[in-house]
Amino acid sequence: MKVKEHVVVVGAGFAGLAVAQRLQGKGMKVTLLDRQNYHTFLPLLYQVAAAELGPTEIAYPVRSILRTNRDVEFRMGSLKSVDPETRVVVTDREQIVYDHLVLAMGATTNYFGVEGAREHAFPLRRMEEAVPLRHHILSRFEKAVHARDPEERRRLLTFTVVGGGPTGVEFSGALAELVHGPLRRDYPMLDLHRDGDGARIVLLEAMDQVLGGMPEELSDYALERLTERGVEVRLDAAVSRVEADRVVLQDGDDLPTSTVIWTAGVQGEPGPERWGLPMGRQGRVRVRPTLQVEGFDRIWVAGDLAWLEDDEGRPLPGVAPVALQQGSHVARNLARITQGTPLEAFRYRDPGMLAVVGRNAAVAHVGGRSIQGFPAWVLWLVIHVAKLIGFRNRLLVLVNWAWNYLFFRRAVRLILPYAKEPVGEEKVSSPR
Amino acid sequence: MKVKEHVVVVGAGFAGLAVAQRLQGKGMKVTLLDRQNYHTFLPLLYQVAAAELGPTEIAYPVRSILRTNRDVEFRMGSLKSVDPETRVVVTDREQIVYDHLVLAMGATTNYFGVEGAREHAFPLRRMEEAVPLRHHILSRFEKAVHARDPEERRRLLTFTVVGGGPTGVEFSGALAELVHGPLRRDYPMLDLHRDGDGARIVLLEAMDQVLGGMPEELSDYALERLTERGVEVRLDAAVSRVEADRVVLQDGDDLPTSTVIWTAGVQGEPGPERWGLPMGRQGRVRVRPTLQVEGFDRIWVAGDLAWLEDDEGRPLPGVAPVALQQGSHVARNLARITQGTPLEAFRYRDPGMLAVVGRNAAVAHVGGRSIQGFPAWVLWLVIHVAKLIGFRNRLLVLVNWAWNYLFFRRAVRLILPYAKEPVGEEKVSSPR
Repeated sequence: MKVKEHVVVVGAGFAGLAVAQRLQGKGMKVTLLDRQNYHTFLPLLYQVAAAELGPTEIAYPVRSILRTNRDVEFRMGSLKSVDPETRVVVTDREQIVYDHLVLAMGATTNYFGVEGAREHAFPLRRMEEAVPLRHHILSRFEKAVHARDPEERRRLLTFTVVGGGPTGVEFSGALAELVHGPLRRDYPMLDLHRDGDGARIVLLEAMDQVLGGMPEELSDYALERLTERGVEVRLDAAVSRVEADRVVLQDGDDLPTSTVIWTAGVQGEPGPERWGLPMGRQGRVRVRPTLQVEGFDRIWVAGDLAWLEDDEGRPLPGVAPVALQQGSHVARNLARITQGTPLEAFRYRDPGMLAVVGRNAAVAHVGGRSIQGFPAWVLWLVIHVAKLIGFRNRLLVLVNWAWNYLFFRRAVRLILPYAKEPVGEEKVSSPR
Repeated sequence: MKVKEHVVVVGAGFAGLAVAQRLQGKGMKVTLLDRQNYHTFLPLLYQVAAAELGPTEIAYPVRSILRTNRDVEFRMGSLKSVDPETRVVVTDREQIVYDHLVLAMGATTNYFGVEGAREHAFPLRRMEEAVPLRHHILSRFEKAVHARDPEERRRLLTFTVVGGGPTGVEFSGALAELVHGPLRRDYPMLDLHRDGDGARIVLLEAMDQVLGGMPEELSDYALERLTERGVEVRLDAAVSRVEADRVVLQDGDDLPTSTVIWTAGVQGEPGPERWGLPMGRQGRVRVRPTLQVEGFDRIWVAGDLAWLEDDEGRPLPGVAPVALQQGSHVARNLARITQGTPLEAFRYRDPGMLAVVGRNAAVAHVGGRSIQGFPAWVLWLVIHVAKLIGFRNRLLVLVNWAWNYLFFRRAVRLILPYAKEPVGEEKVSSPR
């Protein structure tokens, strides 16, 4: 009997999970690695940061997702290195030999070398980043209650979001609803109503429109809705420096703020360059149309980490549909190798773009059509709830949303002590 | 016009919240202090540790609870000291002058000086303790997957609960359901079925019965159900020493275990002795029947921190009904002072005792009657859901429970990086 080929998949995000799930029953042995024991539904991560959802509502244990899949074994561990020569993956816990390796670790925040950004700005790409950000935001209000100096109070209550892409737009919209909704009622002494000057939410975008890739009418709609909901949107506002208590713009303007959220850029998770893989731009690995790494037939990349240009030479965006489709494609190509049929080139079927500005307000560009307002919001809701993994999560998220929607309330506003960086095994295990 | 008397309440647990809520409209100004911004429903804390509920399901922001109460101002801060002479309370953020002070900080874990217990055992009294414990437990299983040595694996999967009171019984029952239910399915390679020897849950009780205060038939019932559900209950088993990887009993027996949960004792939160208040036993403050501290007419104590004996000289137990009733009583006595009517003595109306062993199995001693099994479990469920603060929380908890009940599943099994100790304001605020 032929020995089963061993496929090691690194990363249990959309791409990695798609590979693992699509390889079921294809005659291969699959090991799925992730540094966390859970999959995170990243498109809703900003809602965790805005205290709209709890972490458990958008995350689900990987072992539970794969429970019925007998071809996949999950291993929790951090990827340390890959040796393409010996086909060995090294984690912080073990060494694993692969026949094929799929890198699906995704992307991390890109600060573009802006001075002070890494030190002082909050990233918003992972659960371990969203939760401390939420606690930071909520604790600004508790701190402001005690602030005697009006300037100090104003600085504490100024929240600056850098980057007017989907994450920046969605997060600043959600933050505005949090601040001018439940927090206004929780802190009557801080004068947080929408037209007051108690709190400021500032969205800084370096280009001349928000939601760059969208048609202009949708960008304009999003801009209007954000403004109407109390977000100060500043276009053509490039950040030159971030300090502990201010942001300095390239035009010299200076914004006192004690919270900066950086959503302006992404880059591939570090590592691949060190292991000798060919790199595209943004720290992403250059792949062939089959999604194999150029020059490394046994290494595949799917999702945000892959650098692949479309027919017009533009890179594919780092969004969930690309990750899901690439993950499935890698699985199909791996099956083709086993069957001895020729590999196929990946083709992205663009389902359209969606961004939500807040309650009843979203924009969608689907099949060449622009949709905005309530219909786009319902579309967004239906798609996201349908895609959330696990019936229970969907139900809880729906209950939460329905509650928020009906009563403008958020119960997730607990300031819990979270570690900011992933803590090691042994540190977690020590009770003191 | 008379200046309103200023009542400072320390602690937003059952007792402190009861004081604050009952003082509404009584012509006093109330400041409620807590080191957290949320109230925790402590009777269900063990379910957070057992991954049955998420933190947000049993905690609720204090400001939201008190939103409609215009006489109360909430201040987040840690109590540092009290000066009864000058009537000043000092927190880590401010000084507050009081006319009356209500101490309702509750109790903390008492290790009774057992060697190594403070260093190596997990307490289970606060949200910030339950969440790291959950992560520790879940990460034992991930670690066991990698353990080559069978003894090491067995040690990793031995969970030792010290103390057979309600918390110990409820937690070990819930842990058994977690391990032999969803975790057994998540970790088929670990052989976790109930009659297997993959994992051990050991409950150590120094006395000769579990649930000490309960009638013997109920203790026996709880013991049987726990045993049937896979908990090894050891009576007359007093702990002499806790080490990083074992527990040593007073009879010299030695239990290799990498997780020890200490539920064996409580003591009042420290502080009052230092401020010169008269102490009863267990670090609790000696109060008169009016709930004023002996010798300090303007300082009141309610809840677990109060040392008050009943007519037979037995101290009142540290349970939620005592805290709620004492909180209300302090509020009524404060109102009597304003009205110039005589103070009244506190009388505890015992509603009975309840403890849940697991699915369909609980014991209740109510009005002299013993109830066990499914009826007691339903009673427990109804009472706890009804008491949970906030309709939304109740609804979410019900959804979670219903889901767990119907499908024997738990989705809260995320190993998130939590800080073990409450982190300071500034540490929370630093993103790196």
